[in-house]
Amino acid sequence: MSEPVQAVAERDVLDEDDGISPHLLGSVRAALAAEDRDRLLRELSDLHQSELGRLLERLTPFERTALVDFVGADFDYSALTEVDEAIRLDILQTLSSERVAQALGTLESDDAVYILEDLPEDTRNAVLEHIPFAERLRLRRALEYPAETAGRRMQTEYVAAPPYWSVAQTLDYLRSDPNLPDRFSEIFVVDPRFRLMGSVALPNLLRASTRTLIETFVDPDPQAIAAEMDQEEAARLFERYDLLSAAVVDEDGRLVGVLTIDDIVDVIQSEADEDIRLLGGVGDEELSDTVAQITRSRFSWLLINLATAILASLVIDMFDATIQQMVALAVLMPIVASMGGNAGTQTMTVAVRALATRDLTIHNAWRVVRRETTVSCLNGALFAVLIGLVASVWFSSTALGLVIAAAMIINMLAAGLAGILIPLLIDRAGADPAIASGTFVTTVTDVVGFFAFLGLATLFFT
Amino acid sequence: MSEPVQAVAERDVLDEDDGISPHLLGSVRAALAAEDRDRLLRELSDLHQSELGRLLERLTPFERTALVDFVGADFDYSALTEVDEAIRLDILQTLSSERVAQALGTLESDDAVYILEDLPEDTRNAVLEHIPFAERLRLRRALEYPAETAGRRMQTEYVAAPPYWSVAQTLDYLRSDPNLPDRFSEIFVVDPRFRLMGSVALPNLLRASTRTLIETFVDPDPQAIAAEMDQEEAARLFERYDLLSAAVVDEDGRLVGVLTIDDIVDVIQSEADEDIRLLGGVGDEELSDTVAQITRSRFSWLLINLATAILASLVIDMFDATIQQMVALAVLMPIVASMGGNAGTQTMTVAVRALATRDLTIHNAWRVVRRETTVSCLNGALFAVLIGLVASVWFSSTALGLVIAAAMIINMLAAGLAGILIPLLIDRAGADPAIASGTFVTTVTDVVGFFAFLGLATLFFT
Repeated sequence: MSEPVQAVAERDVLDEDDGISPHLLGSVRAALAAEDRDRLLRELSDLHQSELGRLLERLTPFERTALVDFVGADFDYSALTEVDEAIRLDILQTLSSERVAQALGTLESDDAVYILEDLPEDTRNAVLEHIPFAERLRLRRALEYPAETAGRRMQTEYVAAPPYWSVAQTLDYLRSDPNLPDRFSEIFVVDPRFRLMGSVALPNLLRASTRTLIETFVDPDPQAIAAEMDQEEAARLFERYDLLSAAVVDEDGRLVGVLTIDDIVDVIQSEADEDIRLLGGVGDEELSDTVAQITRSRFSWLLINLATAILASLVIDMFDATIQQMVALAVLMPIVASMGGNAGTQTMTVAVRALATRDLTIHNAWRVVRRETTVSCLNGALFAVLIGLVASVWFSSTALGLVIAAAMIINMLAAGLAGILIPLLIDRAGADPAIASGTFVTTVTDVVGFFAFLGLATLFFT
Repeated sequence: MSEPVQAVAERDVLDEDDGISPHLLGSVRAALAAEDRDRLLRELSDLHQSELGRLLERLTPFERTALVDFVGADFDYSALTEVDEAIRLDILQTLSSERVAQALGTLESDDAVYILEDLPEDTRNAVLEHIPFAERLRLRRALEYPAETAGRRMQTEYVAAPPYWSVAQTLDYLRSDPNLPDRFSEIFVVDPRFRLMGSVALPNLLRASTRTLIETFVDPDPQAIAAEMDQEEAARLFERYDLLSAAVVDEDGRLVGVLTIDDIVDVIQSEADEDIRLLGGVGDEELSDTVAQITRSRFSWLLINLATAILASLVIDMFDATIQQMVALAVLMPIVASMGGNAGTQTMTVAVRALATRDLTIHNAWRVVRRETTVSCLNGALFAVLIGLVASVWFSSTALGLVIAAAMIINMLAAGLAGILIPLLIDRAGADPAIASGTFVTTVTDVVGFFAFLGLATLFFT
């Protein structure tokens, strides 16, 4: 106690890449090989669930099962919420339903639901049968809410008090009830029918005199979240109002659980990840997925791209006579298409993110469309001059320079318009603009790029 | 108090798109036009800072200035942390340095720093001169830490106690000191030289008996964050250990501030945003930027793309004789390049995100490279068959089908390798792989695609 604490980096758990340190990994492997349970427990004892999760990911499937088996009841099953789904299912299927049920009993309800929701339905039911009645009821209720809603993500352990309790009574309750969660940042105030009346932030409770009644300093207007609310919408509420936790209420306003910021951080992270992956043309894949799974999921995206690429080729094929006359067109045409594709992607990226963060709405859409059009015209003009000069010099033809310059302006303008209008239309239609915008935008810029360039060349040179 | 609270959606502040409701906007505009200060204050009174920020963004520049001016000292300046940088600077430059200094005095230190850091240096110094000495010193210290570090983001208001205090003494202190922050989730325990000894989470303080000494239940090993730590690294610590707040310490282990989860949520959001924008080829632009700013920032990305597109054209130019002989090559060549570009982007997206979340490290890089290569070969083979059949039928030439099939396999393999190796190399070199990976990967797939297809065709057909 007399020495100041060490920063986390100085513990020998993670290396500078945030991976498990070679020392720890070696020691755990040695303990496993020697079947030295004491040493293994010692190594694992001060690991946080996320570190244990990372360690599991580094072990072979065989080592993982051996470790869970060997550590037995002392294993911290919350680590399973930190590993890839494939690894989690892998570990769980080596355990009996009774063991899984016992393991879930040691977890907070949101972690238990997180693990249960990915299990095949019959395994899930078998596990639930071994969970005590009251707990099973709560888990089943959370599982009944649709995936990715507040009700599915919430924790059913929370602290609630009636408004007529004094601070002293509330503190007594906190000290005496062993079933309360370890971590909470507010106390919910409920009426006799358990309808939410308000909340008390812990700092306010600490500052109040012990004889004060709860109702005198309750915040009557906390952010309550409907259990059916989409987790992404709930995350926006947390961000907007800087919440640490929020009550989850059913359709009658009754308190059913609490959403905490750590779950919301995961939601924010995974929603941003989802946007990046969708824009990059990859689906919901994880690093631990098998080659077959990945090949299949990427195949469908590439198949759509093949169709649009063939569409662009059909456009080129319309002008095969012109190309035969003037091969320079074949040399230059990818430049027009590529510049349009990049400019369109720029605009689309801004639009997709602004839609996701709700910075782009119907109210400012017109202003943004106008702005993107102006930017496209300006950059179109600049690059028209540049590529016009390059083409004139390269192929010693001013006419060719003028044709490619004109095609560039047309395609950059098309890129700007497609980049903003396509995401807006997809959003209006109720779909996620990150999914399909990219394909549509590059299809437009390929088709317009080839058509404008080869079409103008045909008019000019034949 | 007898009625349960309303969910936030039922307040008439935001519409379903999370924009300011037309009713509120109209009412604020009417109050501004009528110079009705009472009505204006009534409309603004129960707005959260983020809602006020959103409202400011919907007003015209003229209305904004009028509103801030009109509301005067009652204006909630924390709303300025919620608006685009351009709007913030716009509002601030209409105010005198004294007024800005007064405004900052009403804010928490992290919000004050956030506003100060974007000001031009002379304005910033002028404002700082009007801030009381002690506060100015704290702000200057935070501003001295580099941008995007924990020291820059931290709040300098926190609750600290010595280890020999009893719980009762600590509670007395909390009740009596008016300068403590409104919101905090832990109390830091420090030695006489203010070195961090540990922390006490509020639920533990609430549960302890009032005569207990703080030192008996302090957590001696909290996650302490060095003031120089990059905010992104700090965010990872918060995520990994599910923190609500963390002590920020200087190089001597002395407590200098606290980082809270709401700041970290903003960091996580903006780092993910940055990755998406970089992958989409747009820099640090905001919806409120001017057309000139946006055109300039996008121009440089497009210029790089122009260079790589010309490089690809030079490759095509090498085979102009072959194309002249067989125009079908010009028609088909974009398909090979486009499929490679898409497959490379898929792999690159996965790699860039896995590097950002530290799921991809030196330890599993080899496994991931092998996996990506296998996926590329499989999808390459599948699409080789598909496009081979299409080309054979379209141009009635089995030889052409075989050539494009072979080129497709080669380019898909190149795409997979480039998609994983380029981000890994950029990361090893210490740069952000999101910045340049896209350009390099599509350059590789364009060059390899055109070269393989036209080169094989030249070998076969001439």
